[in-house]
Amino acid sequence: MPLVVIGGVAAGLSAASRARRLDPQLEITVLEKGPVISYGACGLPYFVEGRIRKPEQLIVYTPEYFRKQRQIDVRTNSRVVGISHPRREVQLESGERVPYERLVIATGARCDTSGIAGAQLPHVFTLQTPDDATRLRGFIEQKHPRRAVVIGGGYIGLEVADALRRQALRVTVLQASQHLLQRDEEHWNTLARRQLERHGVELRCGVEAKSIAADSVGDFPADVVVIAAGFKPNVALAAEAGVETGRTGAIRTDDHMETSLRGVFAAGDCAEVNHLVTGRAAWIPLGTTANKTGRVAGANAAGGRERFAGIVGTSIVSVFGMAFASTGISATEARAAGLSPVSARIEALSRPGYFQGARTTVELVADRATRRILGATVIGEQDAAGRIDVVATALQTRMRVDEFEQLDLAYAPPFATVWDPLLVAAQQLMKEL
Amino acid sequence: MPLVVIGGVAAGLSAASRARRLDPQLEITVLEKGPVISYGACGLPYFVEGRIRKPEQLIVYTPEYFRKQRQIDVRTNSRVVGISHPRREVQLESGERVPYERLVIATGARCDTSGIAGAQLPHVFTLQTPDDATRLRGFIEQKHPRRAVVIGGGYIGLEVADALRRQALRVTVLQASQHLLQRDEEHWNTLARRQLERHGVELRCGVEAKSIAADSVGDFPADVVVIAAGFKPNVALAAEAGVETGRTGAIRTDDHMETSLRGVFAAGDCAEVNHLVTGRAAWIPLGTTANKTGRVAGANAAGGRERFAGIVGTSIVSVFGMAFASTGISATEARAAGLSPVSARIEALSRPGYFQGARTTVELVADRATRRILGATVIGEQDAAGRIDVVATALQTRMRVDEFEQLDLAYAPPFATVWDPLLVAAQQLMKEL
Repeated sequence: MPLVVIGGVAAGLSAASRARRLDPQLEITVLEKGPVISYGACGLPYFVEGRIRKPEQLIVYTPEYFRKQRQIDVRTNSRVVGISHPRREVQLESGERVPYERLVIATGARCDTSGIAGAQLPHVFTLQTPDDATRLRGFIEQKHPRRAVVIGGGYIGLEVADALRRQALRVTVLQASQHLLQRDEEHWNTLARRQLERHGVELRCGVEAKSIAADSVGDFPADVVVIAAGFKPNVALAAEAGVETGRTGAIRTDDHMETSLRGVFAAGDCAEVNHLVTGRAAWIPLGTTANKTGRVAGANAAGGRERFAGIVGTSIVSVFGMAFASTGISATEARAAGLSPVSARIEALSRPGYFQGARTTVELVADRATRRILGATVIGEQDAAGRIDVVATALQTRMRVDEFEQLDLAYAPPFATVWDPLLVAAQQLMKEL
Repeated sequence: MPLVVIGGVAAGLSAASRARRLDPQLEITVLEKGPVISYGACGLPYFVEGRIRKPEQLIVYTPEYFRKQRQIDVRTNSRVVGISHPRREVQLESGERVPYERLVIATGARCDTSGIAGAQLPHVFTLQTPDDATRLRGFIEQKHPRRAVVIGGGYIGLEVADALRRQALRVTVLQASQHLLQRDEEHWNTLARRQLERHGVELRCGVEAKSIAADSVGDFPADVVVIAAGFKPNVALAAEAGVETGRTGAIRTDDHMETSLRGVFAAGDCAEVNHLVTGRAAWIPLGTTANKTGRVAGANAAGGRERFAGIVGTSIVSVFGMAFASTGISATEARAAGLSPVSARIEALSRPGYFQGARTTVELVADRATRRILGATVIGEQDAAGRIDVVATALQTRMRVDEFEQLDLAYAPPFATVWDPLLVAAQQLMKEL
C-alpha cells in the first residue's frame, strides 16, 4: 500500500518521516523535482550574507540518509507532471508512472515572476532554493555589483536587503503596498522604515516593479535584482487532479490535512490551514507550519488519526539586528472580521539598564466585547521571540487580557524587568477596554 | 476613610499606588520600618558584584515622589508594633497610633538567622535591604576578604556566590538539602553543580550551618559569610492581631487578597497565594508576585472587586551566565500531589549553529491521565526566559501536551530553530504518554 509524497523539503520529508515512524512496513516514496532535498529555505539569506559559508550547510539530510536510516525512497530530479487519482498514480516528467495508495502533496510555494518583464535576465534572482542562493552569491563575488534593487518588502525581501547591505551594496527596496513585513500597523511600518533607513537602505513603498532592464528597475539603478514578491502556492498539479483549492488560492484541507479527495493529503506552503484567531482558512507559508502540517499529513496518510488545530500567524524577522515579531491579527484585520478591536502600545526596557536593557515596543490588540486577545507585535533588539511566543500561546487558548495581565512570567534582573513589557502592555490595554 | 499600608517595598507600594488610581480622594498612608522604600531587592546581588555602582540605583521612587506625585503619605523609619483591628488602628514603635478603615499588610519576608550561632558577628551578612548590600560591599572593599562562605543554595545564595566569585573571592556554598535552586530534578541539580564547579565555586550539599566562628563556618574557612537561607514570611504582627495564617506559614488570603479579617488585606512575600497547578495555597516569595498581589490588594482595599487568580511558580536565575528557569511542579511534587507524572527531557540548540546557538536543556512534565502539562525546566545560556514563559502561559490555561506540541512559535534563524526545543520536548513527551 505505497505512500507517495510529492516534494522533498520541509513538509514532504516531515510527512514521510512521520509515516515511517507510525508504520515501519509502509512503502514510502518521496518525489522531489529539484537536485537536492531537505534544505533550510529560511537560511538562504544568511548564505547570501556569507554567514553560512558552504551551500552544504543549508542541507539537513541527504537522500542516502533517508534511504538507509528511514527506508524511505527519496528521488531527486523527479518532477511530477500529473496526478491521476482514479488510477492512483502520479506521472513523472520522464514518463514513468508511480502508483500510490495514499498521496501527500507538498509542492510548496513559488515566487511568481511572470508579471515582471525582464525577470529572466542574468542579473535577476529569486531566493527559493540553495541553487538560487549559490547563483546569487556567485554573481556577487564575480561581478561585484554595486547597486541592488530588491523587489518586495516582506520577510525575505528585507532579509535579503540586510544581507546585501552587509556586503556593502547600495540597496533599494521596492514594495508595491504601503505595508512592510505583512503587517498594517502604522508604528510597525514606521519602525521598519526607520530601521532600514538607519542602515542605509533606500525604501520606496507604493512602487510596483513591472519590468527590469539591464541596469535598472524603473528609475532605480540596479546591477543586481532580487525578486522577493509574488509568492503563490503551487497548486496547479493538485487542481488539475481535481483537488479543491480554497478562497486563499491554496489547497483546502480539513483538520486531518486531507484534501477534497479521500486519501490525498496536502501540507506545507501549498496548503491552507485554519487560523485559530479568525476561525477562517489562511495561507501563511512558513517553515514551522510546513513541518507541523507535514507531520500530521504523514501520520494520517499512514493510517493515523491526528489533528492539526491550526495556526495563530506567528512570525519574526531580523532587520539589521532588530526583531519584528508578530502574531494573531491587527486591529484593521479584526475590524474587517467584524470584531471591535481595542489596542494599546507601550515602550519599555526589555531588561534593567544595568543589564544593557534595550527598548522594546509591544502592541496588544483585544476584542472589546469578549476581552479576548487578538494579536500582538513586539519590536526590539532583545527577547522579542520569547515575548511574541507568550502571546502566541495565549492566542492558542483564547486567553482574555485580564487573564494575560496576571501571567506568572519569569523575572530576574539579567533577563527581564519585574513588570515585563508584555504585562505593562496588558495593563495599558485593560485601561482602554 | 483612611487606608493604611504596612510595608513600603514592592507589594505595599503597588497596593498604595493602585488604590490611589482607583480612588483619587482616599487618604493613604504607607508605614515602612526601614530608612528607604521602593528598592529592587532582586538587584542587591548585582550591587555586591559591582555591576550596579551606586546604592541610589537600587531605589526606584522616593517618599517625596509618592507624596507629591501620588498624594500618598509614605513614612520611613515607622515600625508598626501592633495592630488592633477592633479599634481599627496600628501602633508604631514611637507609641503613635494610626487609624485605618482598610489595612494592607505587606510586611514581606526575612532571612531568619536565629538558628545560627554567630550570625551577629561583624563579618556575617544577609542581603535583604540596600543597607545590607552597602555594608557587605563596604566590608569587601575595606577588609579584602579572600574566602567567603555562602549559606544557602537557593536563588539568592547562588546569585551572591556568583557576585563574590566575580570579585575573585574563594567561595564555598553550603546547602542543607541536596537540592539547589529549589528544584528536585536530578539533571537540574547536576547542571547547577557543574556550573558552579566550572566557575570555581566549592559546593557542599547536606551541610547545615549551625554556627559561625570568626574565621570559619564549621570546617570551611571564611573571612566573610553571607546567610541566604531560612527565609520566612513576616507574619508575627498579623498573627497577633488575629489574622489567620495558612499551612505554608504565610498569611492566608482569598482571591481578593483579603485575609480572615474583613477589611484587612495582605500581599507580597508575607502572603500565601493559590498555585494554579496544584490548586493549593503556596508560599513562593518573588518580586513579580508581590507587585501583582499588591495591585489587587490595593484595588480591593480602595473598594474595587479584583481577583488574583494565582501563580504557577515561575522563576529564573542566572548562575555565571547560565539561566536556570523553572515553572509549575516537578514530577516528584506531582506524585506527592496524587498525580501520575510523565516527563521527557531533551537537549537541543537554542538557535542554529551559524547564529552561535547554545545548547539548551528542556524538561517537560505532564499528567498521564489528563495529558495536562504540570511543569518544566529550561537550562541554557540563551532564550531560557522566553521559553519558560511559554510554558508558564500554557500552565495558566491548563494546556495539554498535544495542544502544546502544535504551538505556533516564532521562527527565523537568528532567533530559534524551526522545531523549537520546547516543541521537541513536547514531541518526546507525547511518545512517553
